[in-house]
Amino acid sequence: MKAIAVYDDGDEPVLIEKPRPEPTAGEALVRTLRVGVDGTDHEVIAGGHGGSPADDDHLVLGHEAVGVIEDPNDTPFEVGDLVVPTVRRSPNGANEYFARGEPDMAPEGYYHERGIVGAHGFMAEYFTSPAECLIEVPPELAEWGFLVEPASITEKALDHAAASRSAFRWNPESALVLGNGSLGLLTVAMLDAEFERVYCLGRRERPDVTIDVIESLGATYVNSNETPVPAVPGAYEPMDFIYEATGYAPHAFETIEALAPNGVGALLGVPGDWEFEIDGGRLHREFVLHNKALVGSVNSGYHHFEAAVDRLGGLDGSFLEDLVTGVYGLDEFEAAFVDDDTTIKTAVEFAEYEER
Amino acid sequence: MKAIAVYDDGDEPVLIEKPRPEPTAGEALVRTLRVGVDGTDHEVIAGGHGGSPADDDHLVLGHEAVGVIEDPNDTPFEVGDLVVPTVRRSPNGANEYFARGEPDMAPEGYYHERGIVGAHGFMAEYFTSPAECLIEVPPELAEWGFLVEPASITEKALDHAAASRSAFRWNPESALVLGNGSLGLLTVAMLDAEFERVYCLGRRERPDVTIDVIESLGATYVNSNETPVPAVPGAYEPMDFIYEATGYAPHAFETIEALAPNGVGALLGVPGDWEFEIDGGRLHREFVLHNKALVGSVNSGYHHFEAAVDRLGGLDGSFLEDLVTGVYGLDEFEAAFVDDDTTIKTAVEFAEYEER
Repeated sequence: MKAIAVYDDGDEPVLIEKPRPEPTAGEALVRTLRVGVDGTDHEVIAGGHGGSPADDDHLVLGHEAVGVIEDPNDTPFEVGDLVVPTVRRSPNGANEYFARGEPDMAPEGYYHERGIVGAHGFMAEYFTSPAECLIEVPPELAEWGFLVEPASITEKALDHAAASRSAFRWNPESALVLGNGSLGLLTVAMLDAEFERVYCLGRRERPDVTIDVIESLGATYVNSNETPVPAVPGAYEPMDFIYEATGYAPHAFETIEALAPNGVGALLGVPGDWEFEIDGGRLHREFVLHNKALVGSVNSGYHHFEAAVDRLGGLDGSFLEDLVTGVYGLDEFEAAFVDDDTTIKTAVEFAEYEER
Repeated sequence: MKAIAVYDDGDEPVLIEKPRPEPTAGEALVRTLRVGVDGTDHEVIAGGHGGSPADDDHLVLGHEAVGVIEDPNDTPFEVGDLVVPTVRRSPNGANEYFARGEPDMAPEGYYHERGIVGAHGFMAEYFTSPAECLIEVPPELAEWGFLVEPASITEKALDHAAASRSAFRWNPESALVLGNGSLGLLTVAMLDAEFERVYCLGRRERPDVTIDVIESLGATYVNSNETPVPAVPGAYEPMDFIYEATGYAPHAFETIEALAPNGVGALLGVPGDWEFEIDGGRLHREFVLHNKALVGSVNSGYHHFEAAVDRLGGLDGSFLEDLVTGVYGLDEFEAAFVDDDTTIKTAVEFAEYEER
């Protein structure tokens, strides 16, 4: 079968031939439909995560997939069921985190991430997966199912942020998304139903496709060149919830200042080392006197995937059409890895969905 | 009646005469038994909070009180009931935060703090209070009732920290208290029942009374001169829960490094402005990849006072005897404000408790 991989000594995705995998006991065989591309894929290609399986010299890419069951192999699925795979896998048999559907909470050493570190991804015509790592998706989401994984990332961040505010009556109204990449824009759409007022901060100048998407959702674009994060409360309003999806380290700390009293910031970016100065005394005081919170959030649990399926089903089709700027077949897969100013979200298509 | 106050142009507590207050509708009159002294009182005396009532040139000190009902004044209390007052009062009639017993979540402008900012404290022979701001205490706690308020501060921090970890199965075992002041030591005792292993970090060298208290509780003393906060995971273990009660701003950020994966830090200190350098990229990444959380926590709600009453009742009497190094009558009240290396916790006694 065909697969898209990056070699340990390579710096670009290439099309390779691999044997079609055989499901072992408890695994189903899935025929891949579409696989999304995101910033993590670009980091993997650039060698930032560096995680081919131990006995291989290449890593099959892709962690945002949707496919159909080709061979249930005695799992509860039926041929033709539409499924989305979760990303983390237990490397040494089951562990407690996976057993309770919380692979996202497993510490280092307790997981591989398919397509990212230690295990091949889903950019292949077929993949196998333990049945409990496959989330069923309704046929209406066949085209957009590759967005379930990124949406699940946001479901987890919302879940953990709300939990952190559950010890008191929290009535949030305002939300700010830091970052107008594809995850930021998807999150703006997801927050629309939960907050009265949603803002999205980015560095782009008009005219710009991402600003168009933000405004078509009824959200407000904040140009960080004019209004840096600490100036947001004065220029707009203090924010009850902030979602950081930039990986720009100063944002993690500026978030404390931009929050309203009793607000919470969810951090999702993964920056490299970077030393800089902060007014730590003021930030510490702000944290305490105004009951603020920050939660770091990585990956997602099984119930976050399920919540993401429900949430995606409620999003406007025209928004999804705007968000996904390109879906490319294997004959032009390289185009899915181009990231220019007109690109928002792309996917590689391995097969078209055929309703049973 | 006699009261202990600090004048706006003064820098030490003085004994003054004031008229005995008259309870208005909904208020009870309380005869004060004991009032504790803490770091906030020292800051108030030094002018750090600066909050006499608008029409007064002095502030009666004290926010950690226990007393007996002298005149119920048609509230649900009876003469002789033992009570602890909460600290925050609504300055402009009721607001939603007070109405639901969460004055601690009220933003600036929605509260005064008795003995700290905007309203006289409890260091007087009598005080009045709305009945809903008085928490009933069993007679066994008459001597130690002035510890209910500081214990409620810790109850809130534990409540908010646990809430922040309630979106997944959290099984914390290790806890670190930063700071071996009276609140830190009280917290070490309170954490004993919740964590397998409790540590307390301070700057003191042996022999020292606070180290003796820590070790008598079965906890481990961490000398920050030998083991600064970022070195704690290597020298001891990564911590599931960290409670910061130092007001030393670098600790707020070092906490991120000392936490175990999925851990949470509660910040309670209130430092002044202080710029310093951090490796913000590394801390941001730590936050995200290991699902860490920080929650700021100030003041406490009514149910935190109630939880503190229960918790204090379960603490060992010999610990409380060790913690409270001095209780002084009005004839020697100045001694309660001395803070040297042999002082842990002090209180001023206005009257002795007489069981009905």
